[in-house]
Amino acid sequence: MPRAWSLKSRPNGMPMAGDFELIDTPGTPLGEGEIRIANHWLSVDPYMRGRMNDVKSYAPPFALGEPMQGGAIGEVVESRADGIAVGDLVQHMAGWRDEAVMPAGHVQKLPALGVPPQAFLGQLGMPGMTAYFGLLTVAEAKPGETVFVSAAAGAVGSTAIQIAKARGMTVIGSAGGSDKCAWCQSLGADVMIDYKTDGSLVRKLLAAAPQGIDVYFDNVGGEHLDAALAAANLHARFAICGMIDVYNSSHATELHYLPRIIGARIRIQGFLVSDYLAQAADFYREMGGWLQEGKLQSQETVFDGLDTMPDAFLGLFSGGNTGKMLVRV
Amino acid sequence: MPRAWSLKSRPNGMPMAGDFELIDTPGTPLGEGEIRIANHWLSVDPYMRGRMNDVKSYAPPFALGEPMQGGAIGEVVESRADGIAVGDLVQHMAGWRDEAVMPAGHVQKLPALGVPPQAFLGQLGMPGMTAYFGLLTVAEAKPGETVFVSAAAGAVGSTAIQIAKARGMTVIGSAGGSDKCAWCQSLGADVMIDYKTDGSLVRKLLAAAPQGIDVYFDNVGGEHLDAALAAANLHARFAICGMIDVYNSSHATELHYLPRIIGARIRIQGFLVSDYLAQAADFYREMGGWLQEGKLQSQETVFDGLDTMPDAFLGLFSGGNTGKMLVRV
Repeated sequence: MPRAWSLKSRPNGMPMAGDFELIDTPGTPLGEGEIRIANHWLSVDPYMRGRMNDVKSYAPPFALGEPMQGGAIGEVVESRADGIAVGDLVQHMAGWRDEAVMPAGHVQKLPALGVPPQAFLGQLGMPGMTAYFGLLTVAEAKPGETVFVSAAAGAVGSTAIQIAKARGMTVIGSAGGSDKCAWCQSLGADVMIDYKTDGSLVRKLLAAAPQGIDVYFDNVGGEHLDAALAAANLHARFAICGMIDVYNSSHATELHYLPRIIGARIRIQGFLVSDYLAQAADFYREMGGWLQEGKLQSQETVFDGLDTMPDAFLGLFSGGNTGKMLVRV
Repeated sequence: MPRAWSLKSRPNGMPMAGDFELIDTPGTPLGEGEIRIANHWLSVDPYMRGRMNDVKSYAPPFALGEPMQGGAIGEVVESRADGIAVGDLVQHMAGWRDEAVMPAGHVQKLPALGVPPQAFLGQLGMPGMTAYFGLLTVAEAKPGETVFVSAAAGAVGSTAIQIAKARGMTVIGSAGGSDKCAWCQSLGADVMIDYKTDGSLVRKLLAAAPQGIDVYFDNVGGEHLDAALAAANLHARFAICGMIDVYNSSHATELHYLPRIIGARIRIQGFLVSDYLAQAADFYREMGGWLQEGKLQSQETVFDGLDTMPDAFLGLFSGGNTGKMLVRV
């Protein structure tokens, strides 16, 4: 019988294994226009933490006891829809489960870019688009500028590094541990900061970027955001993509350098990638070109089996992933 | 003999009277192209606190033992410059003193708008321009939107209220005490919050703006900024003009609602009015029109005599002023 993860209780702070429950989902016959999908790859992403709270936000909260949602790649195993055949690989939002039934209009066939299908959950999917539009459209990063990327070894950050280098920028990254830092340097990062070593992040960033930073791509919030304020050049732009440091925290963000926003005329802009989907063609065209030129690399951290999905999700908050965190079903 | 205030020691936290010293400044004969000005009105402004620190910022630090600088209005009493005659009223930056000598190119003659000369240190000067460009250009506030203004009874805030009303916006203001709140309402503010009364500012703002705010004009920082984050609508714009709450503090700004910047796609932009001087003609044209229509009112808090100037300055940080804080010499 198909199974799906549901939220059993709303986490307070860091989620725990007991907040999740694997439930049976009786298979239903297909209606006209519907398809059945066997999921192969499931995505876990930091933003899902927000949907576990009972708070109105840009995405509705997960309903308790119901299958959760999220990005997924699967293969069509039954179809009553025109234009979708058994064997087609599709992307959709009915993740956290091994089998999904939905109208064909809710899925997208994967573009033929000659990459493994799970790339469309990572560098060529939402995380990649987030890096692309956050860096180039929201932060308006330009060739020759210095860009600071936090969570640089994550799915979004590692792509942001490579886009910045492909566009001729200097990149300072921050990641936890020497392995992640080494990988980011292999992707082109000019200087890496290991935020787990002793010492203040402000001092590390000022040393790594003695000329200051023009752009900050924020995946982390908290101390990283404060350090970016300290190091920001005149007219610096911050694209606020995520704040993984605070999603599980009830503590306030403490900013010592916020008054610099005035003298340096800093612009801090929050964004969601969903606002830029209409421009996805630009993303695929330019990323496709970089792929063919060998300028894009990626890495995955893969958990095996639907049973492991909460562990994969929780691993996001303990720095357990290099590159995109995925569950293979 | 002419006298000027100098900084004797750099304040740590809140400045104290002993940090200032009144020094004699021997009168010098005029060089070719120079003028001598008897100052009538001296401005004290919150930004001056930043110049008391030995930190490179947008304005250089005040030199210890030297006359301080700031906005001033005076009358020309001696002239060796073409186009400037004895009796002309001029505006310049050699404040904190009773007499100033400088090249004629460093002063501006007051425009003939039929207002008292000291208005050019307030509503028709830097504070007014700060309100105008901060609200309309930086925050892009539009007719029909809801605007939140902190330090609403100050020189900048009280002008921002009136510009917002003249442009058809709903205005929520925050000020300390019922007198200031009543005055702001007389200027057109739709709802006023007295931040000195009991209760959380977040709850007060959410109650005052049940439909949320589209624009925040920040003169205060700290808890006011956090409340604005809590109440911000989708695509809200924050113009960060000042952070008087933190200029004398070594505490970090604590923000509980910062993650809302992502889902609500908030833009937070710091600015300095000096970036908009090239557009001053727009300001004078539109403000002149509102003046003639009786849409602009102002108030002044006046200290008398050069000796009182440090008290006037310190009064800015204890909420001692309604409207523009001035020293009459």
